[in-house]
Amino acid sequence: MNNETYQADVEILDTTLRDGAQGEGIGFSVQDKLSIACALDELGVSWIEAGNPGSNPKDMEFFRLAGNLSLKQSRLCAFGSTRKKGVTPREDPFLKSLLDAATEGVVIFGKSWDLHVTEVLGVSLEENLAMIAETIAFLKDQGRIVLYDAEHFFDGWTANPEYALKTVKTALEAGADRIVLCDTNGGNFPNTITEGVNAVLSFGRIGIHAHNDADMASACSIAAVQAGCRHVQGTLLGFGERCGNAALAAIIPSLELKLGFRCLPQGNLESLSELSRRIGEVANVLVPDNMPYIGNHAFSHKAGMHADAILKVRHSFEHIDPRSVGNDRHFLMSEVGGRSAIAERARKIDPSITKDHPVTASLAGKLKTLEAEGWQFEGADGSFELLVRRELGKYKPLFKIDAYRVVSEHPGGSAISCCYAWAKVWVEGQQEIAAAEGHGPVNALDKALRKALNPFFYNFDIEKVRLADYKVRVIDGKDATAAKVRVLIESTDGVNTWSTVGVSEDIIDASRAALVDSIEYKLISVIERRFKGLF
Amino acid sequence: MNNETYQADVEILDTTLRDGAQGEGIGFSVQDKLSIACALDELGVSWIEAGNPGSNPKDMEFFRLAGNLSLKQSRLCAFGSTRKKGVTPREDPFLKSLLDAATEGVVIFGKSWDLHVTEVLGVSLEENLAMIAETIAFLKDQGRIVLYDAEHFFDGWTANPEYALKTVKTALEAGADRIVLCDTNGGNFPNTITEGVNAVLSFGRIGIHAHNDADMASACSIAAVQAGCRHVQGTLLGFGERCGNAALAAIIPSLELKLGFRCLPQGNLESLSELSRRIGEVANVLVPDNMPYIGNHAFSHKAGMHADAILKVRHSFEHIDPRSVGNDRHFLMSEVGGRSAIAERARKIDPSITKDHPVTASLAGKLKTLEAEGWQFEGADGSFELLVRRELGKYKPLFKIDAYRVVSEHPGGSAISCCYAWAKVWVEGQQEIAAAEGHGPVNALDKALRKALNPFFYNFDIEKVRLADYKVRVIDGKDATAAKVRVLIESTDGVNTWSTVGVSEDIIDASRAALVDSIEYKLISVIERRFKGLF
Repeated sequence: MNNETYQADVEILDTTLRDGAQGEGIGFSVQDKLSIACALDELGVSWIEAGNPGSNPKDMEFFRLAGNLSLKQSRLCAFGSTRKKGVTPREDPFLKSLLDAATEGVVIFGKSWDLHVTEVLGVSLEENLAMIAETIAFLKDQGRIVLYDAEHFFDGWTANPEYALKTVKTALEAGADRIVLCDTNGGNFPNTITEGVNAVLSFGRIGIHAHNDADMASACSIAAVQAGCRHVQGTLLGFGERCGNAALAAIIPSLELKLGFRCLPQGNLESLSELSRRIGEVANVLVPDNMPYIGNHAFSHKAGMHADAILKVRHSFEHIDPRSVGNDRHFLMSEVGGRSAIAERARKIDPSITKDHPVTASLAGKLKTLEAEGWQFEGADGSFELLVRRELGKYKPLFKIDAYRVVSEHPGGSAISCCYAWAKVWVEGQQEIAAAEGHGPVNALDKALRKALNPFFYNFDIEKVRLADYKVRVIDGKDATAAKVRVLIESTDGVNTWSTVGVSEDIIDASRAALVDSIEYKLISVIERRFKGLF
Repeated sequence: MNNETYQADVEILDTTLRDGAQGEGIGFSVQDKLSIACALDELGVSWIEAGNPGSNPKDMEFFRLAGNLSLKQSRLCAFGSTRKKGVTPREDPFLKSLLDAATEGVVIFGKSWDLHVTEVLGVSLEENLAMIAETIAFLKDQGRIVLYDAEHFFDGWTANPEYALKTVKTALEAGADRIVLCDTNGGNFPNTITEGVNAVLSFGRIGIHAHNDADMASACSIAAVQAGCRHVQGTLLGFGERCGNAALAAIIPSLELKLGFRCLPQGNLESLSELSRRIGEVANVLVPDNMPYIGNHAFSHKAGMHADAILKVRHSFEHIDPRSVGNDRHFLMSEVGGRSAIAERARKIDPSITKDHPVTASLAGKLKTLEAEGWQFEGADGSFELLVRRELGKYKPLFKIDAYRVVSEHPGGSAISCCYAWAKVWVEGQQEIAAAEGHGPVNALDKALRKALNPFFYNFDIEKVRLADYKVRVIDGKDATAAKVRVLIESTDGVNTWSTVGVSEDIIDASRAALVDSIEYKLISVIERRFKGLF
């Protein structure tokens, strides 16, 4: 950490990259992990638990590259378990990997529940204590800050309180800098958490690590802080195995706004909604609309009565000011509250744009119209940037699709069905037509389009662009016959990733709109990089 | 209620049909509401709050039809507010509507927060008390059980405790049978709930109504019961305005399994997962995979360590037995735990099928294979029934698609793009070809297909069938070029609704599979209804 300008009242440790990656349907590439680490650093959590280098080679690769990230506000830690039975810490290859990760902090988990010691791990209660003590002492000797995760602490403390407390004392005596009490199975209620924390509070700096199996992870985390914990572990969006980890995006605002505990550097809470959505995009998971504090619907009102009341007294139906977490009454970028967000993003193209610039107002109007038609630019930065360019007059179409045809048919030769497409494009007064087959109609159209454009943009790497994700949403689920669909496409050239959107009654036409934006975005990026100095 | 065989320790009031309908994206037809009421009755909640007849004509229509439902375990109540200012209860048309709904219970909400009384409602503090007292007394006179919702009780109690308590006392003195303390804005923590409940507990039978804006709705509801509340309001799946209401599917198991309070008739908890999913289907909302207790992933394990431990000691990583809420370690119908569910559904076609019947085993195997290929039958009852029929040999294809072609093209006449399709079908050795235009390729194919089939099934109402919903999911989001898509179609003929599924690399082909199942399902239903006696 380069810039220790603040001291948190309650340290936040985000484990999206480690425990979050255990969630079903969650999988990160090394590039995803680097992007998420940067977003978490921008938010300003105290610790980023970034992986388990001993059990996952991809995590080791991450730690190798993470040295170049120059994190400004957060410190990295690697995660692993106490030494294996029957070896010294120095002989344990997993502990060696932990050290090789070269992080400032190391999180070590060990067993607090006698059942797990004898039945799962298969060692004696004494050997388990030795494993805890020796592992921590070894890592302290190597100069690491050691955070000790007391796995299953609350279940262990209920089953055999004496032994559970002994494990925690052992860790502290061996030099652990934090003791983190874990509700690993997520089944405990806040009153048990309060009692458990009280039992160990006098020992040292205590943290909490909760899971959401009884829908109590936020309440347990808050109860722990109210009882005296000053370190909270979770994942920003609640990703995690089974029902997920404690969702920090719900806990941080509760701690800061309602209990007065500072968790993030001053002013950073206002970027919570945006950074949460950014991490959701990288993880390919939508932030649930009803998510507390940061969800799109968290401050939207349907009942007429409520809306009327809000117009009279703002806090009559709002528990906090939505702007304090960077959210809005209706999270549409077109709404009044979103002008600064619009200006912020427009400044990337023209640094002179302010919140009160006429272009900001006209963009807001345009967004409002488009959103009413079903467009959504939250997850489509590429299309949004093109929209800004058009509004600024810094845009000229680099190609035009004159016509296309996509055909899906059955029977399809050797396959059950087959798809092919042709597309005719105009570039600078010249015309080109190309055809391609594909897996499905969108893939066929994508290929045909890039094939037709390739001769004109020979050195622009558009052949390297590929779809990284493709999402379809029916906008009005009822009466689906004439319903619109929104297509979100994520494209990558291997280095950068951008997202574009298209809306139409026809899924192919919606995909075409998103594909065209994707290719234009790529072309403009290449032009900017290669030719900007010439103007 | 016809069958008062049990007395709940904690009464459950489900307001999916009233407060749940305020959730963004939630909209119920009268038929939807009747289906959901039946599901809630099957679950056995004490009360179903079913609508606001004064402000919503559709709700009045529901109450008119609800008389025929013959609910077995639940009682209905209608919802409305205290009388308008300046009129007597008898003159208030909204209160008249409430009585016209002819329900056993009536829920009346009134103001407890002085801010709302003077600033929002615009009446004096005294007039508000009169409104509460007169409304309740009037409804008691009419023989109703009156549940009084003290709106914003906790915020009011924090701002002006004396007045908030006075409103509650007034309601009780006027004869209210339950006093329900509401955290309407959802921003309070469990400790405030405990204190608020303690302040009024001596007055009478107290309930709790929590919202999830601070991710605390479950914890607040449980804390209220721990403090002495014996009535809990919420919506089964947590539907509701903003961040939603307290999710009863998370609260009921906590109360029953962890605190020993009986909420549902004996044995009913085991149908919680299935009934929750059924209500989700009607509402067109997927049960979140990570939802506590009932989510598909609530008991699934990714970390190898955890899976190993579970094989040694089942409760090592499970806070409850998943079967107690009708869930499963991996909720796949193909897994061992799902055999009884498979047999249960197969019995609808052949009543002799048991869990140990060879067909159940072969179906389980088939499902496993299909699920591995990306099929999912949870939300596709129509396709599942066809699968069972095939396995039972009670199936013959009623038509066959010989070939089809779907074309999307741009430019498309007067529109930006246009879609058309032709399909060739074989029925009983005869062939028919038909073509149609549509909004999008799927709509075009659907129309062409039904046009081709219509001459053969002239009196089978297939022209009445329409798509009620169409959902697309990319099964493997990464590397989207060759990813598979799963299409879920919901069809309706205006009376019944059924869902079918298709999977393919080609979205058109996946849609074709789901459309074919949909039409076959419809045809078989008509044949069963009209001709079954002949065999």
